Amino acid sequence: MKIPSYIENINEWKEKFIFSIPVKVRFSETDAFGHVNNTSAFVYFEEARMEFFKHLGFMQKWASVRYETMIVVADLQCDYIKQMTFDQKLSVSIHINHISRSSLDLHYMVVNENAEFCLTGRGTVVQISKNTGRSIPWDDEMKMVLEKELE
Amino acid sequence: MKIPSYIENINEWKEKFIFSIPVKVRFSETDAFGHVNNTSAFVYFEEARMEFFKHLGFMQKWASVRYETMIVVADLQCDYIKQMTFDQKLSVSIHINHISRSSLDLHYMVVNENAEFCLTGRGTVVQISKNTGRSIPWDDEMKMVLEKELE
Amino acid sequence: MKIPSYIENINEWKEKFIFSIPVKVRFSETDAFGHVNNTSAFVYFEEARMEFFKHLGFMQKWASVRYETMIVVADLQCDYIKQMTFDQKLSVSIHINHISRSSLDLHYMVVNENAEFCLTGRGTVVQISKNTGRSIPWDDEMKMVLEKELE
Amino acid sequence: MKIPSYIENINEWKEKFIFSIPVKVRFSETDAFGHVNNTSAFVYFEEARMEFFKHLGFMQKWASVRYETMIVVADLQCDYIKQMTFDQKLSVSIHINHISRSSLDLHYMVVNENAEFCLTGRGTVVQISKNTGRSIPWDDEMKMVLEKELE
Repeated sequence: MKIPSYIENINEWKEKFIFSIPVKVRFSETDAFGHVNNTSAFVYFEEARMEFFKHLGFMQKWASVRYETMIVVADLQCDYIKQMTFDQKLSVSIHINHISRSSLDLHYMVVNENAEFCLTGRGTVVQISKNTGRSIPWDDEMKMVLEKELE
Repeated sequence: MKIPSYIENINEWKEKFIFSIPVKVRFSETDAFGHVNNTSAFVYFEEARMEFFKHLGFMQKWASVRYETMIVVADLQCDYIKQMTFDQKLSVSIHINHISRSSLDLHYMVVNENAEFCLTGRGTVVQISKNTGRSIPWDDEMKMVLEKELE
Repeated sequence: MKIPSYIENINEWKEKFIFSIPVKVRFSETDAFGHVNNTSAFVYFEEARMEFFKHLGFMQKWASVRYETMIVVADLQCDYIKQMTFDQKLSVSIHINHISRSSLDLHYMVVNENAEFCLTGRGTVVQISKNTGRSIPWDDEMKMVLEKELE
Repeated sequence: MKIPSYIENINEWKEKFIFSIPVKVRFSETDAFGHVNNTSAFVYFEEARMEFFKHLGFMQKWASVRYETMIVVADLQCDYIKQMTFDQKLSVSIHINHISRSSLDLHYMVVNENAEFCLTGRGTVVQISKNTGRSIPWDDEMKMVLEKELE
């Protein structure tokens, strides 16, 4: 396995993930090459990210029409380690690698039932204003929640 | 070819379609059985429907935040006549079969490059209020536009 | 609620479903109107159908490269009763309404956490030869399994 | 605009793209935040990549059951510069940044109707054996075709 540049030590990296969701591969997520289509990886990442933000209590705010901020993806990357196939039970993990003023660097890990790496990934999300589209810094309450996750 | 119940005479039916869009099958729309996944049919139907509503001048209103109504799908059905595969050039046609007070019965036809039937379908869309979710009758201007399409 | 033509008595119909899967609405399954896109309904139907075929022991055969038959969707229909939104926990149920020589008429029901109907649907699947594409009748073993489900 | 690390000089980089496809944003590709969902970016990238491989004459081989190799995505990344919305007409461009023994480093660029950057991206694809899954070097004919693209 070739280690992506955003992972320093794969064994230490693995240990940082404490939040995971189960994902079963749907037939509609496969393609004519017989395996999971590359675009489905980002569907799994998004599901984990959304669950993670719910777990932090953030998603409830962003989804509300009255709340002034929302979250957007600034960049995403994925390394495809092992092909996945229909009906596999995956575990999709996410953790905060770095907290910035108004953004987060999130890391992703997908393993199959045999604990083999299938996907690794990372990407930045930014909190922005729904009106102006400009980035909005985390408030103190959010910062506290985020920093607690890094401990 | 078994004729679905919503088609009386297939040759006459075919002639009613005057609005069409081209669709090229994407690789991500296929599945591990090697052909286009059944769920992609409805993606093609929706694309044709949206283009049709733009052609009528309706979509511009519904997509506006200030406009009080939107359009929802009330039911949909699709008959799969011939398998489609990656990279095929399809023609997706749509026409109004029937105009009701606040809804439309739309028919769909998808043929491949050899003019073979791949999909036929139909479905009702309803104009509703964004606030109450209740159905909103077509206004006089919209009715005129719709009836002109039926001529 | 307007009852679709494939449902005679909604209360009796409801009771026929004994096989269900849980589905949580993903953010990528919503659209700019703020609710679940109409095409996602068929993704949920397919997931339930595949799980049902696994439960019957059929999917394992069809997915095998050496097995000579596969399953295709001949037609599908869906009635949209109640809008679904991001993060809702749905229950997607499926049952066999009718067994034919080489096909099945399957019915679908989707309810939300408050046991409200969101979607109802039906559709035919046909067992076909991977080589010729012709329909292949259920063998005695499969017929027995299918008929047991109807009891 | 923050320049991703895989772009040295944005103006020079822009000029390298000579192969483009038009993509119109579908309604089903948006999400409840009102814009194009982040996962759709990779659908656009794949469509451009597949068209590019057809243009090179490679896709025809890989899609054939008798041909011994296929192509897989090894990694992908995307930077989201500007939000895209329903019905926008995008231009999705692709070019070969680097040719390796059995792989390619491909770059992607998506601009809207006003020639504004919406997405930039890159990713490696690898030619592999359908049987063993191992990487297979480009043969002389393929290498010649690839190198001609770089000129």
